[in-house]
Amino acid sequence: MKIIELKETITASNDRDAEVLRNRLADSKCLLINLMASPGAGKTTLLERTIKDLNGRYRIGIIEADIDSDVDARRLSLLGVKAVQAHTDGMCHMDAGMTKTALEELGFDDLDLIFLENVGNLICPAEFDTGAGRNVMILSVPEGDDKPLKYPLMFTKSDVLLITKIDTKSVFDFDFDKCRERAKKLNPDITIFEVSAKTGEGMEAWLEWLTGQTDQWI
Amino acid sequence: MKIIELKETITASNDRDAEVLRNRLADSKCLLINLMASPGAGKTTLLERTIKDLNGRYRIGIIEADIDSDVDARRLSLLGVKAVQAHTDGMCHMDAGMTKTALEELGFDDLDLIFLENVGNLICPAEFDTGAGRNVMILSVPEGDDKPLKYPLMFTKSDVLLITKIDTKSVFDFDFDKCRERAKKLNPDITIFEVSAKTGEGMEAWLEWLTGQTDQWI
Repeated sequence: MKIIELKETITASNDRDAEVLRNRLADSKCLLINLMASPGAGKTTLLERTIKDLNGRYRIGIIEADIDSDVDARRLSLLGVKAVQAHTDGMCHMDAGMTKTALEELGFDDLDLIFLENVGNLICPAEFDTGAGRNVMILSVPEGDDKPLKYPLMFTKSDVLLITKIDTKSVFDFDFDKCRERAKKLNPDITIFEVSAKTGEGMEAWLEWLTGQTDQWI
Repeated sequence: MKIIELKETITASNDRDAEVLRNRLADSKCLLINLMASPGAGKTTLLERTIKDLNGRYRIGIIEADIDSDVDARRLSLLGVKAVQAHTDGMCHMDAGMTKTALEELGFDDLDLIFLENVGNLICPAEFDTGAGRNVMILSVPEGDDKPLKYPLMFTKSDVLLITKIDTKSVFDFDFDKCRERAKKLNPDITIFEVSAKTGEGMEAWLEWLTGQTDQWI
């Protein structure tokens, strides 16, 4: 079996824009969390549960980035949070410029915490700094414990790994120890939580981390 | 709730290269199938089962495209098929040029059927013609029935939609009728199969389609 290398250098031209945006958010005492995952990993369901469980503790905003449709933003705006839908029109990720446009449309002077639900994609979003204060990724149990081996950059760039849909673990072969070990090997500083947004299992630890970050920021 | 459009035109500069490659494969009586799906949808497991069930009927080659690692190519080469691993080194999709490089490395004069397992991504691979004779996509039950709404191009570009992991349907809310309807609305010509590579349910219909395509090609 042969291995062929198909090289390409990834440009990171938007890093400066991201830094400017991050400083603007910090000045406004607003924490932006960039939430990344595969399609169907359950980003919106996790956000729904998180917003409900935070129970009005923060003034929350949501940017829903999608190639098309507005189903997710409509779902979340039912919870009484400020939400905008950002259409990327085919683009597979959000960058700092797109995030800035969406943030200005949302307005963040009156917000403490903003979740950017990035485009469903385990690859490209990891390559572009959005200006977020924290990067959080989701890996759902049905996707398998080998994902750190195949999509290493996402694990390297994330501050938090949420292993979700743990309520389904009886029907999938998912080795939690192996997954943790693989993620930690790529990124020793990554914080890992195991949660089910459906049953609520494990949500307390994730919320504790979240309020720890947000309280120190605002 | 506001909707913001973040436009970008997707270039399709590799279409001519793809056409040349498609003609070369046709001249060699070799069918290339481009298999696309999200990370963790079960592409490799489906290929494994498909190769086993074809039971030596064709001379099969495999191109495993991944950002990193070679776990999938190693898994499939155990089945006695000719396999190469193509490392995209961060690139989120395969294009015609990369496919040509991998095909030349694999060699296809002595093959009837080649599966290109594209990078796990429901967005970018749909934008680049690889030169394949047929495009096949997988949507697994855990990902949800709303994916045609969010990733329309993938459904538009695929000849076949394989709804997989149907053995797990009891633990997920997946509306098969709605999913079919949404996919058909985007692409009335798409052929849809429901399968489980684990239990074998539904595999016969998929294999029948596959041999129908391959037999007319070779």
